Amino acid sequence: MSLPSHGSNPTYLYDYYNLNKPNQVIDFSVNTNPLGIPNELVNNWSNLLEKVADYPDPHNTNLLERLSNKLQINQSHLLLGNGAAELISLIAFYLRKKSVLMIQPTFSEYEQMCKVHDCEISYFTVLPEESINLKKFETAVKTQDAVFFCNPNNPTGKYVKKDQLEKMARICLKYNCLLIVDEAFYDFLIDYDDSIDLHKKYSNLIFLRSLTKIYAIAGLRLGYLVTQPSLILKLEKYLSHWHINAIADAAGQICLKENQFVRDTQTFILKEREYMAKALKELAFEVIPSSVNYYLIRDDLTTNLHPLFVYLLKKGLVLRHTVNFPGLDGKWLRIAVKTKQENKVLLEALKQWRKET
Amino acid sequence: MSLPSHGSNPTYLYDYYNLNKPNQVIDFSVNTNPLGIPNELVNNWSNLLEKVADYPDPHNTNLLERLSNKLQINQSHLLLGNGAAELISLIAFYLRKKSVLMIQPTFSEYEQMCKVHDCEISYFTVLPEESINLKKFETAVKTQDAVFFCNPNNPTGKYVKKDQLEKMARICLKYNCLLIVDEAFYDFLIDYDDSIDLHKKYSNLIFLRSLTKIYAIAGLRLGYLVTQPSLILKLEKYLSHWHINAIADAAGQICLKENQFVRDTQTFILKEREYMAKALKELAFEVIPSSVNYYLIRDDLTTNLHPLFVYLLKKGLVLRHTVNFPGLDGKWLRIAVKTKQENKVLLEALKQWRKET
Repeated sequence: MSLPSHGSNPTYLYDYYNLNKPNQVIDFSVNTNPLGIPNELVNNWSNLLEKVADYPDPHNTNLLERLSNKLQINQSHLLLGNGAAELISLIAFYLRKKSVLMIQPTFSEYEQMCKVHDCEISYFTVLPEESINLKKFETAVKTQDAVFFCNPNNPTGKYVKKDQLEKMARICLKYNCLLIVDEAFYDFLIDYDDSIDLHKKYSNLIFLRSLTKIYAIAGLRLGYLVTQPSLILKLEKYLSHWHINAIADAAGQICLKENQFVRDTQTFILKEREYMAKALKELAFEVIPSSVNYYLIRDDLTTNLHPLFVYLLKKGLVLRHTVNFPGLDGKWLRIAVKTKQENKVLLEALKQWRKET
Repeated sequence: MSLPSHGSNPTYLYDYYNLNKPNQVIDFSVNTNPLGIPNELVNNWSNLLEKVADYPDPHNTNLLERLSNKLQINQSHLLLGNGAAELISLIAFYLRKKSVLMIQPTFSEYEQMCKVHDCEISYFTVLPEESINLKKFETAVKTQDAVFFCNPNNPTGKYVKKDQLEKMARICLKYNCLLIVDEAFYDFLIDYDDSIDLHKKYSNLIFLRSLTKIYAIAGLRLGYLVTQPSLILKLEKYLSHWHINAIADAAGQICLKENQFVRDTQTFILKEREYMAKALKELAFEVIPSSVNYYLIRDDLTTNLHPLFVYLLKKGLVLRHTVNFPGLDGKWLRIAVKTKQENKVLLEALKQWRKET
């Protein structure tokens, strides 16, 4: 059995290590909003019971209308998914047997689903300390049918702005190569450089988005993609009927109105991330500058982070190991920005670790 | 624009006819349990809010364990779906470019998804008044890779018992042909002849089941299939991560304990269906003997049921037209068994119709 790779289910991790799971666990491996679910959704929860018995709207008319208004993008450019994960599967299916480039280290789901659909996978590695070299990128792209690019990147938190992204799109277009830009975490950026309109200029662009992170509705599953209408038509026919459940549909409509909540989140994340980065550096941890709600740390004193990972697990603090991220190879840990209180608990534990080792 | 084919969203139907949708609509086109959601789920609804923020269990460990215990089938023979619709898509994908036989008239989803995946479709028609002729069935099956069979059938309500089903499975096996048996409505049968164990004897059998009809949780999406483990392994890798949302997972665990609720439903359905059948015959409607919670009617006085369909729509009574069911061609209407009160409202409207025409 290999070390469980996905965060979000600490139980499997404790089972793997044969450790007793403490009653109190703080899961720093999950990248959802530390402010939790918007109040408006909490307050409306009891009303959502009436959505349970009926089939969901198969066309998600109201949700799509709200999303379209919010983004100022015509509905024909939008496709909803049962979580962004469903859309990643769908794109991988669309790309079956094609050559696909992964800009790595990155979210493992792209590669996993592309492999399931017999794609030929290549890699373009950009280490946490590096930037994308466009010349090298062009060389890598030349022979590819598609490129997956997570921006801001998971797990590094690094963010490529619009002008650079446009250069990447142009290079890909030159070689008739799709560029799939996963913006699952864009809402957490306080200085997001709105790039989504690029999909109108570059027919080879697909933007992937998620509502589950920013609104802390990961249990409900809701994501979408933005691309040219002709590609939407090719993709959507493969989705099964009623793939968006009625609770996600209704919750999405509620959440998409929560603009102040998103702004409050951005301010909070920025402040807590900077506070943590400073404190961690004082403890001799290297912190990769991140733009979002998680960040990578490395230990200046050792390359083996495994003992620290297990030490924290025993204390009920679950970090995200990076064993299955090529280029990181377990030498980094990914930490989510959680509540002020939770972040402090982690800091205290790390201070204790420094004392004891 | 064609007449909307799926029930469950009367709004699209009223839009099609350019009719004002009455404030009070009774939807006889939806085949979910007229007794509604089990009380236990209603009472627990507020607790399910805590499942919203976290990712669903990607392995659905607890739900699978409960399902496995209830069915007395090993978990390696079970695969959950985001509604049975997702599993139909998945099977259609698995069968891509193969030859597939539809025993029709039947649920349109099988054909639709098989066409999306470039299957070659053939038809074996069994009219509502007929039974399956095994000789003819064998001739039809000989050249096929797979057969879809809905049992009890939607929309006819007709049910084939275990011994006959086994003969069909044996014929299919002889020609190395998959037999997909959709038992979405089996829970409504008071005399269900448990056939599911046949999948152990016949490696070519797949049973499809749904939890959304019997427990009235269509909005949440939850279904499963039962087949041999080697086929489960081939299929499951194509499903996207977290495809079962956390509310469906939790609701499924609650509902699967509701054995008395299921028995009460079966008794209620039988009684109301027989009451309606008798009353409708007195009004000169032909009623196909059904085993489940819906039935087909035909008008002894005319083959054109369209005026009646629209007449009832105007009164806020939505029946299921059969225009897109080959072999029925709109000459029948499908009616769901609803509550005692709702069924009476329909009867009164039909009496009125007889008076006025």
